[in-house]
Amino acid sequence: MAELAELLDAKLTGDGQCEITGLATLGNAKPGQLSFLSNPSYVRQLKTCEASAIIIDEKYQDSCPGNKLVTDCPYVSFAKATSLFDNSPIPLLGIHDSASIDSSAVIGKNVSIAANTVIAANVSLGDGVVIGAGCYVGESVSLGNACKLHSSVTLYHGVVLGRNVVIHSGSVIGADGFGFAFDGVKSVKIHQLGGVKIGDDVEVGAGSTIDRGALEDTEIGNGVKIDNQVQIGHNCKIGEHTIICGCVGIAGSVTVGKNCILGGGSGVVGHISIANKVQVSAMSLVSQPITKSGMYSTGTIQAKTSEWKRNAIRFQQLDSIAKRLKEIENSTDKK
Amino acid sequence: MAELAELLDAKLTGDGQCEITGLATLGNAKPGQLSFLSNPSYVRQLKTCEASAIIIDEKYQDSCPGNKLVTDCPYVSFAKATSLFDNSPIPLLGIHDSASIDSSAVIGKNVSIAANTVIAANVSLGDGVVIGAGCYVGESVSLGNACKLHSSVTLYHGVVLGRNVVIHSGSVIGADGFGFAFDGVKSVKIHQLGGVKIGDDVEVGAGSTIDRGALEDTEIGNGVKIDNQVQIGHNCKIGEHTIICGCVGIAGSVTVGKNCILGGGSGVVGHISIANKVQVSAMSLVSQPITKSGMYSTGTIQAKTSEWKRNAIRFQQLDSIAKRLKEIENSTDKK
Amino acid sequence: MAELAELLDAKLTGDGQCEITGLATLGNAKPGQLSFLSNPSYVRQLKTCEASAIIIDEKYQDSCPGNKLVTDCPYVSFAKATSLFDNSPIPLLGIHDSASIDSSAVIGKNVSIAANTVIAANVSLGDGVVIGAGCYVGESVSLGNACKLHSSVTLYHGVVLGRNVVIHSGSVIGADGFGFAFDGVKSVKIHQLGGVKIGDDVEVGAGSTIDRGALEDTEIGNGVKIDNQVQIGHNCKIGEHTIICGCVGIAGSVTVGKNCILGGGSGVVGHISIANKVQVSAMSLVSQPITKSGMYSTGTIQAKTSEWKRNAIRFQQLDSIAKRLKEIENSTDKK
Repeated sequence: MAELAELLDAKLTGDGQCEITGLATLGNAKPGQLSFLSNPSYVRQLKTCEASAIIIDEKYQDSCPGNKLVTDCPYVSFAKATSLFDNSPIPLLGIHDSASIDSSAVIGKNVSIAANTVIAANVSLGDGVVIGAGCYVGESVSLGNACKLHSSVTLYHGVVLGRNVVIHSGSVIGADGFGFAFDGVKSVKIHQLGGVKIGDDVEVGAGSTIDRGALEDTEIGNGVKIDNQVQIGHNCKIGEHTIICGCVGIAGSVTVGKNCILGGGSGVVGHISIANKVQVSAMSLVSQPITKSGMYSTGTIQAKTSEWKRNAIRFQQLDSIAKRLKEIENSTDKK
Repeated sequence: MAELAELLDAKLTGDGQCEITGLATLGNAKPGQLSFLSNPSYVRQLKTCEASAIIIDEKYQDSCPGNKLVTDCPYVSFAKATSLFDNSPIPLLGIHDSASIDSSAVIGKNVSIAANTVIAANVSLGDGVVIGAGCYVGESVSLGNACKLHSSVTLYHGVVLGRNVVIHSGSVIGADGFGFAFDGVKSVKIHQLGGVKIGDDVEVGAGSTIDRGALEDTEIGNGVKIDNQVQIGHNCKIGEHTIICGCVGIAGSVTVGKNCILGGGSGVVGHISIANKVQVSAMSLVSQPITKSGMYSTGTIQAKTSEWKRNAIRFQQLDSIAKRLKEIENSTDKK
Repeated sequence: MAELAELLDAKLTGDGQCEITGLATLGNAKPGQLSFLSNPSYVRQLKTCEASAIIIDEKYQDSCPGNKLVTDCPYVSFAKATSLFDNSPIPLLGIHDSASIDSSAVIGKNVSIAANTVIAANVSLGDGVVIGAGCYVGESVSLGNACKLHSSVTLYHGVVLGRNVVIHSGSVIGADGFGFAFDGVKSVKIHQLGGVKIGDDVEVGAGSTIDRGALEDTEIGNGVKIDNQVQIGHNCKIGEHTIICGCVGIAGSVTVGKNCILGGGSGVVGHISIANKVQVSAMSLVSQPITKSGMYSTGTIQAKTSEWKRNAIRFQQLDSIAKRLKEIENSTDKK
């Protein structure tokens, strides 16, 4: 545990020889495991927690009877600790026999390319890149050092990833943006001539899609984290360290600021800008520009369907209700 | 048809020799086809229906002039009948030459593995497992007997499927849950150390994603049916026989009860519980725990955009409207 | 530029010898590039625009000092011009060594099949078909002339594509519709016996899913354009030239008319019909049939969460508010 304390830059109180073999929540931890207190509402669990040690903020340390690792931000320390117990498989270095690598590809040191992956012409892969099975890396794609594509990732031609970008399975980067011009009879395709440029330290979940730009590039800033089944339309610019939760849909030509959080299932209509440090609550629709940081919402609050229906029908009369109320107020004022 | 009656455990009325060659709805059935009456509002169609026989409830049988198969639940009987007319291709037994199978994999009897599929180390496949083309089955994954993966399914390391689980193309099971701790500057990854455990008789549609747990497993109960493009976050527990319709998004650490129905496009925010036998209507957001069975909704009812807008603007004044109404009531009371 | 004028059927004003090397928006264009004025609110940018030529409507041509290509519909002309600057890789003709092609497949002229793609029995591919890497084309699938599947597309057995259909990566056509009959204990699978039939000139984005019909086919009309992460349930019929934006979910047995536009993230419940030329705004839910063309919406307008919450709580009281208002009106009338 002394080692752990050093790694987490934590103050150790208790038995430094105690061996930690895993991580668990306060409620589930067993002897040998390390737990953490991040949410103050769990302070009560400290007394009964069986963990061999707990990562904790200084101000709660007196409530914790056993071994502790005291840090400024226990949740961040816990995050760092997870890297020590990462049980994900270590990729084999080298290129699998069944992978198809174009001879023009430039491949860095210590690269791993798994079975059935296809690397097209003029691709550039940095040092330490790991590419899972069945991926497709299109023409002239560039991956910075230490990028990881899990299996079945598709990168269309010209996509550029910075360093240390992780993309999960089933995601598609650089497909055509949705652009058509209606000529009165049919939709004429607007060929999508831009690309996608992703910064450093970006993670993209499974089954997400980021479209290539129409004329210029779609851009994802450094440190952006994107969850599963997110759709980002062409020409979007996503600011640094913004968090995009699962099932978010962002239409084309949207600019999202830095350090925003778009809640799960939320949406943004096309051609608008969102300021820095904006939060959008789950399943809310941003249909107008947001110029000030803060939290924004749409929708109604859950209710039994029978009650909801009564109110939802009244919503249809709301303009009339407001006008009738005004009329009564006016007539009352006159009296 | 006598055979069919036996299989469906139905009472046959009419010509047992009549040959049935297919299935159709009441409105479209042609001679030679079998149809069914499930929704009472279609009773009128019985008279003009050209089907050679109809699966029907006892109470409607007098309205049906031709051959009938009388059962307690015609819709279930129809479901069973579809299995007789299943026209999906029969997979070839054995392992395709182009599949990459790790030598440590344990493979049951009568297994079919199609082209370009990759089976990683320490995988265990039960008897009768069918795996389509281009799948990736990660390290130490376990599939029970009679599981079927359609083509392009990705299972990350350690995923466990029970018996008779079907997963459609493009779905990804066991990708990292979306966990990051913000250190004031950047998001620190919480490595996802848990797995995914799926029970027996589960079906997952196309393009769905079920994330691995952060510390413990994400769990899908027996008999759960999941449609296309569903996202289930890390640490969720989905109760037995729950139905999750298309495009549903469930955030992390959600517990859903047994026999629930989550309507298409609905969402559930993180860290809450939903009781058994709860129904959520289409595109509704569950943002608070649900402790009683019943149906729940959010949102408003569709309207012409011009009318909707008038009412939606008034929604922004609703608190003021309520207060002003209260004021008038108070002043009226005083009189 | 004279060539370009001919191709776009535009009236050239200015220097016909001027060479155009690319396309850009009015705000970003550099010398050598062609731009366009489609949205009148950008007229002011014409004066400072550095483009070597601008596609413009006759009525704005006097505001444009430089070279012009005058057309009736500049946006459509711009769309046509993009095809000249398309920089996407040209597929190699022929069949890659690593592709698995069933010997019964019928393959047209000038076909390109990339690495690791699997073509099952009795498939028919028209002339000029291009199939990317890692696709799966199931039994008896038929692709008309000039169809293009990007990499990692899955077509289940029996899917029929017309001519000139484009499908982007990760999309799955023909997976089982979501059909189960609950027998009181468990859900009995309704085998999906229908197929999917897609017309000519259809484009499907990345990560979209279109399910096969239960008994009859799911049908997508000619000229329909479908964006990313769209879900179309079994038995749907989508009318010609309808536009379906990203993240739309359409439940089963829905009929959508011709020339509709379903906005991003919108949804349609099962078993209803939508007329021609209907528009649904972003993230709106269609829960009732629509018999007249026009635009439809649901939801509320974005607000700061604190303000939204006050109003959303009042929504729960809306029926009561309406009744209390009525009571006051009644008592006022009596006076």
